[in-house]
Formats: sequence, structure tokens, C-alpha cells
Amino acid sequence: MSAVVLCECFARDGLQHEPAFVPTAVKRALIERFAALGFRRIEATSYSNPKVVPQFADASDLLRQLPRREGVYYKATCANPKAVERARADLDASFGANEISLLVSATESHTQKNLKRSRAEQWANVEEMVRTADGRFRLVGTVSVAFGCPFEGKVDPGVVAEDAARFAALGVGHVAIGDTTGMATPFSVRDLFDRLSQLDGLVPIAHFHDSRGTGLVNYVAAYEAGVRHFDSSFGGVGGHPAKVKYGGGHTGNVCTEDLVGLFESMGIGTGIDLDGLLATAEYCEQALGRELHGRVTRTGLNPLK
Amino acid sequence: MSAVVLCECFARDGLQHEPAFVPTAVKRALIERFAALGFRRIEATSYSNPKVVPQFADASDLLRQLPRREGVYYKATCANPKAVERARADLDASFGANEISLLVSATESHTQKNLKRSRAEQWANVEEMVRTADGRFRLVGTVSVAFGCPFEGKVDPGVVAEDAARFAALGVGHVAIGDTTGMATPFSVRDLFDRLSQLDGLVPIAHFHDSRGTGLVNYVAAYEAGVRHFDSSFGGVGGHPAKVKYGGGHTGNVCTEDLVGLFESMGIGTGIDLDGLLATAEYCEQALGRELHGRVTRTGLNPLK
Repeated sequence: MSAVVLCECFARDGLQHEPAFVPTAVKRALIERFAALGFRRIEATSYSNPKVVPQFADASDLLRQLPRREGVYYKATCANPKAVERARADLDASFGANEISLLVSATESHTQKNLKRSRAEQWANVEEMVRTADGRFRLVGTVSVAFGCPFEGKVDPGVVAEDAARFAALGVGHVAIGDTTGMATPFSVRDLFDRLSQLDGLVPIAHFHDSRGTGLVNYVAAYEAGVRHFDSSFGGVGGHPAKVKYGGGHTGNVCTEDLVGLFESMGIGTGIDLDGLLATAEYCEQALGRELHGRVTRTGLNPLK
Repeated sequence: MSAVVLCECFARDGLQHEPAFVPTAVKRALIERFAALGFRRIEATSYSNPKVVPQFADASDLLRQLPRREGVYYKATCANPKAVERARADLDASFGANEISLLVSATESHTQKNLKRSRAEQWANVEEMVRTADGRFRLVGTVSVAFGCPFEGKVDPGVVAEDAARFAALGVGHVAIGDTTGMATPFSVRDLFDRLSQLDGLVPIAHFHDSRGTGLVNYVAAYEAGVRHFDSSFGGVGGHPAKVKYGGGHTGNVCTEDLVGLFESMGIGTGIDLDGLLATAEYCEQALGRELHGRVTRTGLNPLK
């Protein structure tokens, strides 16, 4: 058993805002490489409306081609009950995702802007999705803008803890805490995860963005606060569409290869095959046709143990 | 008084490996901006042999043009007693650096490859430089490859602590600890600075490289171990010439703008004018004619306090 569990987000969160459609065969090859490398949680696709997010128009086609692997969770994001119905239909046809994720935003303004409804309406939506899922998937909740909101500023950690508890009460035991805006600090990270550690039956996941270069700092703080699940993306690809929605700026997930390198150099086992890590990072760069943000891709892993 | 003291390294460490000569007027404008922004320690230039490092052929010209500022240390690096003599001659002419730095490497192999002599010979060289300086400058020692050596691997922290103590015994009270190869981890950082905190009369300075994306993580670890002096460079420019000497890889100092943003968001005062920070980061990009590595330059400072 590894000391931490990383979820590789490249194929969904990473590709979500890529303007060019990535062929299904490439997505499949990427995901298979991630699984072979040792990832036990992999964001595979999204059951989005293909008119809104054409990148994932191939969701069912892709999942049909993905062989099941013992102990590996393929996650698909679902925005509404109709998406969960699609996920169920795929499952009925003996393929598909075995983990789906359901999203809320911690603030009213961000919910309105991002999800086009109120928080109360979104929670009703989540409850209906949970009913539709009917216990057939592992469910992962996500609380976005958990530290800072682009419209309301500092977010009350008490509200985030309530949201996490509400997910847990619905049977959604894994809850990803999104630092969507890159506004967390080691102090606010410790404070929030200390609160979450009081909640029974909750497995917290850190899903932070590296918008201000603080991804690794805050992941170490989360680790020290007891978090063992982390989301990241090769090359730091993905993250929220700052350029479109929030007036510019660097977006970006935490770089998988740098995170794995850091944890392993600290003696924190990730379960990832280090011999294949950088070749996969380079493969991700080839898939997108450009150099990405990973530092160890250029420098090599830390040789010290 | 700020909680931490940052040394801005752009004009020396940053420019050292830039292939194009940066005009003296631009260097002066950069340094004056750094001072106006609130930096109290600024790497200004190097008294290198102009044939070896043509970028600093203008060392004395530049320093002659730099107005003295109360409370600001302009640092020049010196490789040998002749360089210290040049620094003294400038001081005799009523201008010049008021801080000079003297370098050792923690391992025999790195000393041989980088300085072309043995550690014993280099320490003799340092002792002669200290005598030549004759108490007229604030002296800063630097111990490079303090965590990992490209030739010998893991470095014994006991050796680094001995080197720091040896500097202190020579009257060199400020000692920069160089993570030249980007191999430090939060654990090794805490271990080393805990040892250094036992030494009387020593002011430790962290001078880390972001080769593997761990610069900010390790600076936070150093802060928590009691370090209050940090070296950084706008845009992360500079660092050791990995591409030339160590078989490739990303080089880079810790980005000043991201470090200031992180510390300030943690409530750790840097003394830097935040209103002017990003404009200076952009000015540094203009000076080099390319986009640099600062994240907050693209994203903006963390608006949360």
C-alpha cells in the first residue's frame, strides 16, 4: 500500500479546456499508461453535454475501449442527473466509470456564475444525482472555491466543513477540497483539514491549483494535516479557465511528476513507478504538442533518498 | 522591520548565464527599482574576470553609478583576493559594494570541478580574501551543494555545519546555504537549519534553487526552522548552469514575486511594496525580452489576507 493515493487528472480536468479535440485513441493510450504506472484513481472523462464540452463527446466510446483493472477507479464527472443516467447506461452495458464526481461551490456567487443556479438548487441537484447513482458507483464530492472565491474573497472554512459533512451524510464519503483560485496558504490548509478530520466517515482529497506557484507548498501542508489523497495532472495541465472566466492569469493543476518526485524524495510512497514517470510526462507533452510545466521532466528526479 | 529579509539576486546570479550583455544603464535601473521596492539586500554584480564572465565586465562602472542608500546592502561576489582588491579600490574611490560574498563547496568533487582546486586550497583562498577585505565590508559566506552534490550525491549536513562554523570563526557572520542542485526536501532543510541554529553568531541565509519545483516548499520549511534571510530572483532567473555543467535540466532561482506573494499571504511581512511588485516583475521580463517563470506575474497576487 502506498502512503498516499494520487488521482491523475490529465485526461479530464487536464483536457477540459484544450481547444483541439484529442483523439479517443490517444486518450485511451494516456489512461492506460497512467494505470500501468501505478495510479489507482484516474479521471477518465466527463459525461458533459457534447455541445458545451466537445472534448468529451467521446465519453462512452472511450470508456467502452478501456479495459477494467482490478483496484483502479476510473472517474467520470457528472453535472446533472442526466449525466448520471448516461453513466448508469454504460455500466449496464458492462463498461464505464466506477467512480463519479458531483460538484458544489462553497459560495453563492460562484455557484450562480459557474453552475447557473443557487446553492440550494445545486444541493437538490446533487441529491437527485446521488439517488440516480443508486449505489452503483463510488461517489466523490467536490467543494470548489474552498479557500477563496473570485467574487466573494475569503471563504468561511465552517461552510466548507458543512458542505463536506453534507456530502458524507448523503453517502458521498470521498470529498475533494478545491483550491480553485490558488488562494490557499499552508495556514488555511491546516485549519480547514483539521476541521475536516473531526468528521466521521470522510476521506478528504486535496484538489489544489498552482495558480500562484503554491501547489506543492500547500500539498505538503495538507499531508502534514493528515490528508492522504491528492489530485494532480501531468505537466500541470488543466485547472480552472482563468483566462476566460476570471480576467486572465495562469491556470494550472499541480504537476504530477513534480508532486511524485517531492513525495518520494521525502520518503512518502506514492505507488508510482518512478522508472516510467518521466517517459509518461514526455508522452503527455507529445499528446498536446507542447512543452508543459513539469520541472523534473527537464531536470530529472531527485536522486537522493 | 520586516519579518524576513529577501536578497534580490536578479542583477548578478540572474544575469550571470544570460548570453547577451545587459547594458549598464539597464542593470542600474533594475537595481534602483529593487531598492525602491524595499529590498535591503541586492546582488549587484560580480568582480569576476571579464574574460571569463563578460556580463560583469562593467562591475565598477555600474557601482560608480549606483547611489548609496541608507540601510541597503549592495552585494558583489568575489572569487579571489584580486577581486576583493578591486572591491576595495572602488570603496577607496567612494563607491562600490558594501557587502561581498565568498564561496565554498561542501564536497571535494564539486570544489574541484567548479573552482578548479581542493577544498583545503579554497578555504585558504577564503581566508586570504577575508584578510584582504580588512573589515571594510559585510562578508557573506556561501556553502554550495549543501544538500546534494551532482558528483557525490547526498551531502553530510555535519560538513555543512562545520563549514558554516568555519565562516563564522573568520568573522563571516552571514552564511548562505545553497541548494545548488535542487535536492533539498522539507526534512533535510529542517535538519540542517536545526543544526545551524546551534551555532553562535551565525545568521543563516537560504539560497535554494527551484530545479525540481521545490523552492517554495523548502523556503517555508526553512522559515519554520527559524530562517529569516532568503535569496530569490525575479522570474526565477539564474541558478546554476545545469545545461552546461550537469547534463541539462531546468535551472532556476526561486521566483521573488511568488515568494513575496506567498509570505505576505501567510502574514509574514517582507518589507516589499506590493503595489509595485508585479510592475517590477514585468520590467525584468522586458529587460530580458522574454516571459519568465513568475506565476503571480500572470495571475496576480493572492487577494486574501
